[in-house]
Amino acid sequence: MSTLYEMVVQTCSVRGVLLYEMRHVVDPVRGNLAVAEFGESLPFLPRRFFITSGIPSGQVRGEHAHRLCAQFFVCTHGECHVLVDDGEHREEFCLNRPSLGVLVPPMTWAVEHLHSSDSTLMVLASRRYEPEDYIRDYEEFMAMIGNSSHPV
Amino acid sequence: MSTLYEMVVQTCSVRGVLLYEMRHVVDPVRGNLAVAEFGESLPFLPRRFFITSGIPSGQVRGEHAHRLCAQFFVCTHGECHVLVDDGEHREEFCLNRPSLGVLVPPMTWAVEHLHSSDSTLMVLASRRYEPEDYIRDYEEFMAMIGNSSHPV
Repeated sequence: MSTLYEMVVQTCSVRGVLLYEMRHVVDPVRGNLAVAEFGESLPFLPRRFFITSGIPSGQVRGEHAHRLCAQFFVCTHGECHVLVDDGEHREEFCLNRPSLGVLVPPMTWAVEHLHSSDSTLMVLASRRYEPEDYIRDYEEFMAMIGNSSHPV
Repeated sequence: MSTLYEMVVQTCSVRGVLLYEMRHVVDPVRGNLAVAEFGESLPFLPRRFFITSGIPSGQVRGEHAHRLCAQFFVCTHGECHVLVDDGEHREEFCLNRPSLGVLVPPMTWAVEHLHSSDSTLMVLASRRYEPEDYIRDYEEFMAMIGNSSHPV
């Protein structure tokens, strides 16, 4: 007996960040399937993907923004937290199932942390790797978006 | 101290199937990162992805070919086996690390099985979901590729 859940997309206080509960089929006999289509349910075609794994507890990844690149984060196994910050608002999500994704638009500061020992994070990116697209200094990021007060 | 491994792509006896050992950085302090770009290292831009998880031992998934859709399989956590068959040759691979991917072109019969209890399989597909693209009967598949003898 399988159950089909249709996709639900939610906004949050951080500009352009969307939480996707993907279409998924939950079936204790055959196993579970989460699915999404690009250009329809997701706003970009991926040009690149990367997978992080084996991240020791206490390690913090990310800590940058992109000028132009959008990203879609899914923790396919285990769990981790993703913090997003547009300079005005900040939110943090616990990604703990393969059907849950976070869309992070350009000019959003993002941090991944609190990885479980079995955490595997997949990130689909809208652009190829371009070193000049990275903003690695938070104060520079804040200056670029014209905000000098820290987010709430 | 991190180690960078550059991408290696290998052919096999099954027509068009490629094994990708992706570019990856192995770092016991910061964690591991596997990465690939589409249009450069991978031959298509994904239009769809799906993730299977929680597949009970003994369950077999796949067991179909696609007329037009190409797919890229990565077991992001745990392990599973992927069997590929072009009607003439058949091979089976154990996907057991997030840096290892299998490119499966159209008109290739594929089966996923022997999932570990923690197996999570991500599949990136070159086309949207099209029910008419699936060939679910093996004899029909063999007839379509003009081969009546089973592969070795």
